[in-house]
Amino acid sequence: MKRMEEMILKEGKILPGGVLKVGSFLNQQVDTAFMKEIGEEIADLYKEDGVTKILTIESSGIPIAISAGFAMGVPVVYAKKNKSSNVSGDVYTTPVKSFTHGDTNNVVVAKEFLKPEEKILIVDDFLAHGSALTGLISIVEESGAALAGCVAAIEKGFQMGGDRLRASGYRVDSLAIVDEMTDDGITFREQ
Amino acid sequence: MKRMEEMILKEGKILPGGVLKVGSFLNQQVDTAFMKEIGEEIADLYKEDGVTKILTIESSGIPIAISAGFAMGVPVVYAKKNKSSNVSGDVYTTPVKSFTHGDTNNVVVAKEFLKPEEKILIVDDFLAHGSALTGLISIVEESGAALAGCVAAIEKGFQMGGDRLRASGYRVDSLAIVDEMTDDGITFREQ
Repeated sequence: MKRMEEMILKEGKILPGGVLKVGSFLNQQVDTAFMKEIGEEIADLYKEDGVTKILTIESSGIPIAISAGFAMGVPVVYAKKNKSSNVSGDVYTTPVKSFTHGDTNNVVVAKEFLKPEEKILIVDDFLAHGSALTGLISIVEESGAALAGCVAAIEKGFQMGGDRLRASGYRVDSLAIVDEMTDDGITFREQ
Repeated sequence: MKRMEEMILKEGKILPGGVLKVGSFLNQQVDTAFMKEIGEEIADLYKEDGVTKILTIESSGIPIAISAGFAMGVPVVYAKKNKSSNVSGDVYTTPVKSFTHGDTNNVVVAKEFLKPEEKILIVDDFLAHGSALTGLISIVEESGAALAGCVAAIEKGFQMGGDRLRASGYRVDSLAIVDEMTDDGITFREQ
């Protein structure tokens, strides 16, 4: 998605430790006009795939999931990072390590929201080492639902999570793939 | 909003301790068709108010904020519950106690996303004791931006947070107000 690359070049800030900060348009602050385009792009990528539900993980995946859900006309489910008093009963759970925060959370989805007859599209804002997507994939597989694929708004190709998932046979689409990120600039992978 | 009351009656579950669970359509799982209606309702309530930005708090306020942002054509900012390595630099911060989880988090908004020339609409999913809205209001006031008002999808009137804020002079609109919640049923406030 050309516009994603342009937005990263215009607004993105490179922080120490391989962090790409896009808080002015993708998380923290959401450029809703651009977010609409993101949802439409995802809907277009998966228009032939019979997706019945979108799964994401709180918090920064939610705007993208909602926009894609609007564009595709399907419900959204978001995994929570800790079991709360509002997630009762039977749940799927899996540990996910956050690259940005360095901690590991048990992510949780109530079983009632993932049924074997569904076809799930997983979306998230960032794909780095792939821990979040791997966790969400394992939840979908445990539920017996079919997996249409995974979409990340921004993949950090140099952290290899996306390529590892593709090598394992999963469909992974990223709207922009950053292959190199230095003080001199950002190199995107040709797609 | 009549449809909100209908959805609560159809889908809501009352848990011990005054918790109203609406995970099948409002949080955890989001009914995107209904979420679109929520955004349009909020846009209609504030169509004369010159809102330039919507402020919410992660995670369950985000779907509502995004939908309202789409309908109103303005950006969304969401406060984070903990300072992360992605929120750098100058921030506004305030403690917020969660009624559902019982814990207190410092919520954080980067100063660059709230400017004195803006007019802010605060939205959230639930309004109970009012701790989240009070915290977000204090952040808006500290920033020097104008506050258009606050919208909650569901207000639990019996926990008084909404009425306290109204008595302090703030505009607070709730799409449904639950005045009583017992095993026998739910009573909504006439609006």
